[in-house]
Amino acid sequence: MASQRSSPSLFSNWKLDLIAAAGEFIGTTLFLLFSLGAVQTVNTNVGANSDGTSGGTDVNANDVTRLLGFYYICSAFGFALFAIASIFYRFTGSIFNPSVSLALVLIGVITPIRFLLISFAQMLGGIVAAAILAGLTPGELNVGVALNAGTNRAQGLFIEMFTTGTLVLSVLMLAAEKHQFTPFAPLGFGMVLFVVMLMSIQYTGGAVNTARAFGPAVVQGDFDSYHWIYWLGPTLGGLMATGIYVFLKKNHYWRINP
Amino acid sequence: MASQRSSPSLFSNWKLDLIAAAGEFIGTTLFLLFSLGAVQTVNTNVGANSDGTSGGTDVNANDVTRLLGFYYICSAFGFALFAIASIFYRFTGSIFNPSVSLALVLIGVITPIRFLLISFAQMLGGIVAAAILAGLTPGELNVGVALNAGTNRAQGLFIEMFTTGTLVLSVLMLAAEKHQFTPFAPLGFGMVLFVVMLMSIQYTGGAVNTARAFGPAVVQGDFDSYHWIYWLGPTLGGLMATGIYVFLKKNHYWRINP
Amino acid sequence: MASQRSSPSLFSNWKLDLIAAAGEFIGTTLFLLFSLGAVQTVNTNVGANSDGTSGGTDVNANDVTRLLGFYYICSAFGFALFAIASIFYRFTGSIFNPSVSLALVLIGVITPIRFLLISFAQMLGGIVAAAILAGLTPGELNVGVALNAGTNRAQGLFIEMFTTGTLVLSVLMLAAEKHQFTPFAPLGFGMVLFVVMLMSIQYTGGAVNTARAFGPAVVQGDFDSYHWIYWLGPTLGGLMATGIYVFLKKNHYWRINP
Amino acid sequence: MASQRSSPSLFSNWKLDLIAAAGEFIGTTLFLLFSLGAVQTVNTNVGANSDGTSGGTDVNANDVTRLLGFYYICSAFGFALFAIASIFYRFTGSIFNPSVSLALVLIGVITPIRFLLISFAQMLGGIVAAAILAGLTPGELNVGVALNAGTNRAQGLFIEMFTTGTLVLSVLMLAAEKHQFTPFAPLGFGMVLFVVMLMSIQYTGGAVNTARAFGPAVVQGDFDSYHWIYWLGPTLGGLMATGIYVFLKKNHYWRINP
Ligand SMILES: [Ca+2]
Ligand SMILES: [Ca+2]
Ligand SMILES: [Ca+2]
Ligand SMILES: [Ca+2]
Repeated sequence: MASQRSSPSLFSNWKLDLIAAAGEFIGTTLFLLFSLGAVQTVNTNVGANSDGTSGGTDVNANDVTRLLGFYYICSAFGFALFAIASIFYRFTGSIFNPSVSLALVLIGVITPIRFLLISFAQMLGGIVAAAILAGLTPGELNVGVALNAGTNRAQGLFIEMFTTGTLVLSVLMLAAEKHQFTPFAPLGFGMVLFVVMLMSIQYTGGAVNTARAFGPAVVQGDFDSYHWIYWLGPTLGGLMATGIYVFLKKNHYWRINP
Repeated sequence: MASQRSSPSLFSNWKLDLIAAAGEFIGTTLFLLFSLGAVQTVNTNVGANSDGTSGGTDVNANDVTRLLGFYYICSAFGFALFAIASIFYRFTGSIFNPSVSLALVLIGVITPIRFLLISFAQMLGGIVAAAILAGLTPGELNVGVALNAGTNRAQGLFIEMFTTGTLVLSVLMLAAEKHQFTPFAPLGFGMVLFVVMLMSIQYTGGAVNTARAFGPAVVQGDFDSYHWIYWLGPTLGGLMATGIYVFLKKNHYWRINP
Repeated sequence: MASQRSSPSLFSNWKLDLIAAAGEFIGTTLFLLFSLGAVQTVNTNVGANSDGTSGGTDVNANDVTRLLGFYYICSAFGFALFAIASIFYRFTGSIFNPSVSLALVLIGVITPIRFLLISFAQMLGGIVAAAILAGLTPGELNVGVALNAGTNRAQGLFIEMFTTGTLVLSVLMLAAEKHQFTPFAPLGFGMVLFVVMLMSIQYTGGAVNTARAFGPAVVQGDFDSYHWIYWLGPTLGGLMATGIYVFLKKNHYWRINP
Repeated sequence: MASQRSSPSLFSNWKLDLIAAAGEFIGTTLFLLFSLGAVQTVNTNVGANSDGTSGGTDVNANDVTRLLGFYYICSAFGFALFAIASIFYRFTGSIFNPSVSLALVLIGVITPIRFLLISFAQMLGGIVAAAILAGLTPGELNVGVALNAGTNRAQGLFIEMFTTGTLVLSVLMLAAEKHQFTPFAPLGFGMVLFVVMLMSIQYTGGAVNTARAFGPAVVQGDFDSYHWIYWLGPTLGGLMATGIYVFLKKNHYWRINP
């Protein structure tokens, strides 16, 4: 009897172990993709090697300001998402990003009608934020995103897919799933935005959100020929995250952790 | 019977969806207003474009130090508000800002007498902090706020209104409202202060608090002709936040999130 | 009957209001003392005014590196205290600082014998950390604290008193007091250390801990004539915090917040 | 009777006091080792003394960019570990690091089979992350770790041992142990990674993880002759942390804190 019961248990353990290994593989890949991406940003531009030999070009004040500007901007987006999403978290539940809204309608948390309404509201918010900012600040508005540092369109598209996909996955796992960290989910996805932007800001401007790319383009009247990558990339990311989430739910991921 | 019950339900859903969309609109606008404001600060001054063409003027050591100084100061205010408010949070409840006190008396959490006493205490605290600092540090005290970078008075007034309004709204939604994040509310409003300052410090000095603007002006004996914007702006912000909060409460905002 | 009951209630409310105002006064003073101190650090050295006129001297690469070095160091101490104290928090309860140990023995949380043992252990830890670091890193060890930027001894003494006093107060209010934030107390006092160092690092090196000042001095064999301020300042801070805490407990501070 | 009972109690108190002192000694040593390490990094390179006399060489733009690059990279790793581990925390439990997996199998939390599978998955994740990044970004991949600033192999080995050991200890005390902070453990070990990297990045590149060192070496085809220190160092760290953890459990560390 005991062996009869232990056999399926062994089989089950093997399956659990393989799913755990798949999870560790995906997690380690994402963790190191964004971390190493930050290293690449630093090393190809300003030379982080302490022996004075940088991987990039000569080091000058422009390099320093660019890297510091990246850090300033990534901090603003990451902590603003945490802070402002905290305020509205118990109210609207979604987080100011049409790709997140897409994932929520696909998994059935919101209705298609609400999806359409809040996605429209999010895009409108992007435009209005840029318009208010243009009025509040002196000088020309200059807050758009762009491909930079030699990044091509395919690279830009997949960067936006990976970064937005990870952000959406964090919302699904931290906010859509209910557990002890759920009331603190905005801290989690705010910091996800911070780190995916640290990796991507040099290459794509780090949109991670169609509304963030679209709003300034409308107000500044400045659409690049590749503007579509900021629509397709985040959308593919939202679909990718939804697929991973559905797979994990089907496999009862919460049974994996011993 | 079923149709009778579903009809009001449908109607109710439409109303809930519209309120959710309004919430997403306001939230996305605030999130991107402050985030894009940080981008504007970086781009108009020190050139964050990796192709070397900046949106502003020439890049030099002064640009770097200014941007780094902004980050240093915003970090100090944001994390100090979190840290010091954590200490006093269960004791006084208010958070060192007369505009927050104003909102609390308007929604009936504190009495008018307490409002007057603690607002006076907060303003006095601003003066005493500046006076102690003048004694503790060598050299002239130089910690005031000012309009900069070409910002005009109307812009300064509305920047202080939007930034303070968002801070007050976060106190109302995170601390006045009771839920699982409430014991951690100081982290929320500390980080709100961090990000609204990242946007506003270049333009108005990022006061977000009349006591912060008034105290150094008294000790340094240096009142700008437009000092009134640091009284009117935060006050209008407190009123704006109170209005939004009352509207949300009237509409039972906690029913919106599915 | 009602008036009989309301009269003492009114009297009681007045007293509560005055204590609340005292709390807001102390809190606002501490919040702005450290925040404005960071502004002073930035403005007197590297010029944070965006119009290019700094409050200090000429701006050069040395100014930028100094300010960046300050930020790097303050981050390391603040987040290390949070991170390492989290590990040991449920184990030893104290936090690597003899002035905190002093406060804990004074309020009766630990015995005098334990106070002596752990204070000795903390001072020894400071020496051993510096010694290990000397072995692990190439070049001369250079990690001591010193008065700088023209700070005199009285200023240094009181800066160390205020900064350490605020740190100790945070431990008493967040960890010694038991409430929902208590399991997260290390985040609170870690961030207190971060912000009090952002204010003090330029003037005293930001010790905020006798063990942090003493250990490197022993290993580097380098005692300044004013080394005593790093013993007396934090000790006075610990006594000040204990006094405030006892006063608040006597006045049942938790009844103040409506 | 009372004295009979108080005698063993006294004896027991002495033992508890000594264990508490040992804990404070280790904790203070680790806290100051990493904090002072950051000071050393700043002072030996860019001169943090405000009197203009630095402990290192001349200050130039290259020094600023190097230090800023360090901060950028450490932030990316620390916050990415927090953010990505939060997503997968309730799923796989381990945290993308073979040395953590080693500790978990040694204390019996996971089986040897799972240890082998997830360690392999983690190493594979390191390779795949580097490969994806090479495809996503223009230019040569340049994200490896290396001994720098004159660090010799023994120093590098022990730096990797101490940093990884502290990271593993934080996982054991915050995640393997169950308490109120456990749902937030990723914040704890993310910030541990942040601070141990602030100390070590200049000397060893701050791997703190064999998978982080190995993946880029494979993709870039660039193995240093001392690459083994990134295998042996973290492994010794994992063993050291496991030893401390077992000792603390044997001594019922949770009884120490009064
Ligand atoms: Ca404008
Ligand atoms: Ca003075
Ligand atoms: Ca040495
Ligand atoms: Ca490439």
